[in-house]
Amino acid sequence: MDNKTLQVVPLGGLGEIGKNMTAVRQVGGIILVDAGLAFPDEEMPGIDLVLPDFSYLREHRDELRGIVLTHGHEDHVGALPYLLREFESVPVYGTRLTLGLVRPKLAEAGIKNAKLREVEAGDTTKIGSFGAEFINVNHSIPDAVAVSLRTNAGIVVFSGDYKVDFTPIEGEPMDLNRYAALGNEGVLAYFGDSTNSERPGYVPSERIVAETFDEVFEKAEGRIIVASFASHIHRVSQVVDAAKRHNRLVGVTGRSMIRNVQIARDLGYLDLPQAMYVDQRDVNRVPDSDIVVLTTGSQGEPLAALSRIAAGTHRTIEIGEGDVVVISAHPIPGNERGVSRTINNLMKRGAEVLYTPLRAVHVSGHAAQEEQKLVLSLLKPKFLVPVHGEFRMLKHHAETARSLGIPEENIFVLENGAGVEFDAAGEARRLEPVSSGAFLVDGGGVADASEAIMRERQQLSEEGMFIVIARVDARSGELHGTPDVISRGFMDPQSQNGLVDDSVGVVTKTLQRTAKRRVTDWGELKKEIRKDLAAFLSQKTRKRPIILPLIVEV
Amino acid sequence: MDNKTLQVVPLGGLGEIGKNMTAVRQVGGIILVDAGLAFPDEEMPGIDLVLPDFSYLREHRDELRGIVLTHGHEDHVGALPYLLREFESVPVYGTRLTLGLVRPKLAEAGIKNAKLREVEAGDTTKIGSFGAEFINVNHSIPDAVAVSLRTNAGIVVFSGDYKVDFTPIEGEPMDLNRYAALGNEGVLAYFGDSTNSERPGYVPSERIVAETFDEVFEKAEGRIIVASFASHIHRVSQVVDAAKRHNRLVGVTGRSMIRNVQIARDLGYLDLPQAMYVDQRDVNRVPDSDIVVLTTGSQGEPLAALSRIAAGTHRTIEIGEGDVVVISAHPIPGNERGVSRTINNLMKRGAEVLYTPLRAVHVSGHAAQEEQKLVLSLLKPKFLVPVHGEFRMLKHHAETARSLGIPEENIFVLENGAGVEFDAAGEARRLEPVSSGAFLVDGGGVADASEAIMRERQQLSEEGMFIVIARVDARSGELHGTPDVISRGFMDPQSQNGLVDDSVGVVTKTLQRTAKRRVTDWGELKKEIRKDLAAFLSQKTRKRPIILPLIVEV
Repeated sequence: MDNKTLQVVPLGGLGEIGKNMTAVRQVGGIILVDAGLAFPDEEMPGIDLVLPDFSYLREHRDELRGIVLTHGHEDHVGALPYLLREFESVPVYGTRLTLGLVRPKLAEAGIKNAKLREVEAGDTTKIGSFGAEFINVNHSIPDAVAVSLRTNAGIVVFSGDYKVDFTPIEGEPMDLNRYAALGNEGVLAYFGDSTNSERPGYVPSERIVAETFDEVFEKAEGRIIVASFASHIHRVSQVVDAAKRHNRLVGVTGRSMIRNVQIARDLGYLDLPQAMYVDQRDVNRVPDSDIVVLTTGSQGEPLAALSRIAAGTHRTIEIGEGDVVVISAHPIPGNERGVSRTINNLMKRGAEVLYTPLRAVHVSGHAAQEEQKLVLSLLKPKFLVPVHGEFRMLKHHAETARSLGIPEENIFVLENGAGVEFDAAGEARRLEPVSSGAFLVDGGGVADASEAIMRERQQLSEEGMFIVIARVDARSGELHGTPDVISRGFMDPQSQNGLVDDSVGVVTKTLQRTAKRRVTDWGELKKEIRKDLAAFLSQKTRKRPIILPLIVEV
Repeated sequence: MDNKTLQVVPLGGLGEIGKNMTAVRQVGGIILVDAGLAFPDEEMPGIDLVLPDFSYLREHRDELRGIVLTHGHEDHVGALPYLLREFESVPVYGTRLTLGLVRPKLAEAGIKNAKLREVEAGDTTKIGSFGAEFINVNHSIPDAVAVSLRTNAGIVVFSGDYKVDFTPIEGEPMDLNRYAALGNEGVLAYFGDSTNSERPGYVPSERIVAETFDEVFEKAEGRIIVASFASHIHRVSQVVDAAKRHNRLVGVTGRSMIRNVQIARDLGYLDLPQAMYVDQRDVNRVPDSDIVVLTTGSQGEPLAALSRIAAGTHRTIEIGEGDVVVISAHPIPGNERGVSRTINNLMKRGAEVLYTPLRAVHVSGHAAQEEQKLVLSLLKPKFLVPVHGEFRMLKHHAETARSLGIPEENIFVLENGAGVEFDAAGEARRLEPVSSGAFLVDGGGVADASEAIMRERQQLSEEGMFIVIARVDARSGELHGTPDVISRGFMDPQSQNGLVDDSVGVVTKTLQRTAKRRVTDWGELKKEIRKDLAAFLSQKTRKRPIILPLIVEV
């Protein structure tokens, strides 16, 4: 790598590409943009969260100069506690709310000496050999920024998660003027959010949700419950503002909602006076018509507060005829069934339930095609790297860029781990992929649950397990007594009928056969048992359970 | 039950209510409307399909007079082979295509003496003490009908799955005149399809898909691949018609697509001359620009032909730059991720992929709100029972009906198993629920996989399994040697580190403790081992695997 070369490598993201963590590397050091986590999909049973792969960073351990955070969402900051366990001395740059959300996470993970550097939109700072600038953008959380880096190869802009909101309910509209100035100066490459690149037109302003809330609050006679992402402080603000206008107190339930409301109040991002605040234990003391309850569970997560309210298992909050529930979020792909189940359950209890697209109770936080065109037109980047999205979305972002005249060879649709290099001649090329296998976190600790374990769990869940215990003479290889057979997740004991007896018969026959050959190699015995039993079970039941033969020496 | 009483009981459907099978009962017998199956959701690992509960029918075995089928989709006819195993002598009424699709299923199940009675739209027939009439409706399969029953209590109409298409690409528009005539005569109750009751307006005609197909065929230079439901004979027809207009041959892949195309050709529902037909083995012999391939896999099912083409594992068909794939279907809730994965994979191979809502390559087969209003206005039913949909959709159908002046007390939103009774006084009331637990079919046979097994499989897949084998003296209860510990789906052997050793220590300590008390009751020993080990593993890993202690007597 020479003095003018720049390498950018997306290291995180599961289905999405270039989302959670990106390394920017030149002579003189590496900057990380974001350090977030992903959430597991249905092919990862028992997995709690998915971290980016840190191996590239471990290889270049001495080069890491700083971590810049674009905003406080989990998919951009959630890996920080795990990352700082290994890289605690690396400074972390973020805006006030972003760091405010990060601090308790680090404390919980026992990380005490993190070097948190607060910045605000408009600031510029030196990080290693890079010049970094933070630029205000609109998103579904306050204090979100884009990051522009002055590198040896030129100016590179990372959009963060953004939309263009000319009438935000808090803070300033996105700093388009700054984008225009950078565009005039000359932008080498733009790494742009592609989440909504399949959506034509503009995403509406957050302000339209206020109008729907007013209609709902005006009409409601019973309790109002609003579910949203706990991190969506703007939406929370909107609920509080509506409560003020319509003389309702504000109850809060759900662990992350309670915590985020507290952080946002402490840092001045949420104006919720103590006199209006109702602890979840006291919700029932307030007449239904005088309260709105903020809750988690907008994604139908089975253990979240709203799901418990819907199932009738919430500790304090019940729901019934005359109450209104607003689901102020859009289901993330994969969560549709859970959300639908919650809606059904709430309706069965007699509540009215309002949700998109039937009512305008939510707007997206990500730019649609016309906003993407606006940004590309202002920045006039030489190269576009569409990021934040599945391959299909990156492709659509690329198409939008081509429609504006960016030549195809200047657009790089990447995969995670496979970066791009910009050189002194102003050219760009793909890099060889580095290790970027997602790191699955299972249970409390950081246990790397491998693909083999995932496959084993899927087989267990779909086919069940069949265990055979045989007592075998260590010297002669002869079977003593009758083998025992136990199954789990396979069939109901009642419906197994003769299957267990027949299986015992199969195993007995196998062992009689091997005893004749005086086989005393337990590995070989197990292989034979597995083979015969698998053939028998597959023929009888068309299932392929995991078969586990246990040999007990006697 | 007196001579004027009528009972209607929905017996099938999983998330959806009143969908797969409904019993209509009066003095003189029972008619079943449809005998379909449901597909398992993510909480039923390893389950292949879900049958309605037949127990109500077994209880009233002697009353069953006939089964009427509204159309040939799996969720309306798929349970028939299972039902007829027990009720082979009961006559089955259906239109030509419906019975055409049913016949090979019955043959495969070895049912030889089914009494299939072909009817056509407009026919009336006597079934037991009922007068049955079949009325033409539009849907995403030809030959679909609604069923009107003249009962002792009055006229009851079952909508089947329907939409109103004034310009269908095959057959006649829905017979609104017949609905109007029934409305004038007086309809007691209407059981209406609610699938699209959350959707305002009208569903567009199937004909608009032809316009998109023409644009696509006009422009495409490489191979065109169209994925749709194999049963969607109209859509298949549209592809064949477009192929004729644009001089392409038609290849067919995917087991159910090949079968349904054959049935539709044989019965005259699809005009695909042999000269245009290309077997999947011969697709590669035709130049890319001269062929369109019809395939299954529009729902992203991992083993379907399109998924295999996308993954590069299809036996004969490859895809690449210059090819166009049309996904001519909408993902059923729960299938979004699978469909998205297929789209990403196809795009990574360089294909252009067209799908809704970005392109008009699909229209729904179910009526939206304005069509529901039209039907309710023509039929003027005294009672409405919204069916076919989750609770939320039934509620919206009910709201639409209220907006037309049907009083709330005349609308019955039911749950599966909980029917409604109409009496001589023209009144209606809810019935006590009957058994309607879905019957899960696992593997090849009909094994009733119970809820307990489902829970066990989920725990296996999320937490894994931990097996302990201890050799214990039968008389003293003392441990011989060291216990063995085996895990599956729990942790990678490498990352278990000291966990296995520590677990062996825990079990050893437990058995030393019980030996002191001279416990030789294996049940009690197992309970103690399970308790101690669960506490240890949960504390160390926060996981709760299934623990299976095995005691071997020595």
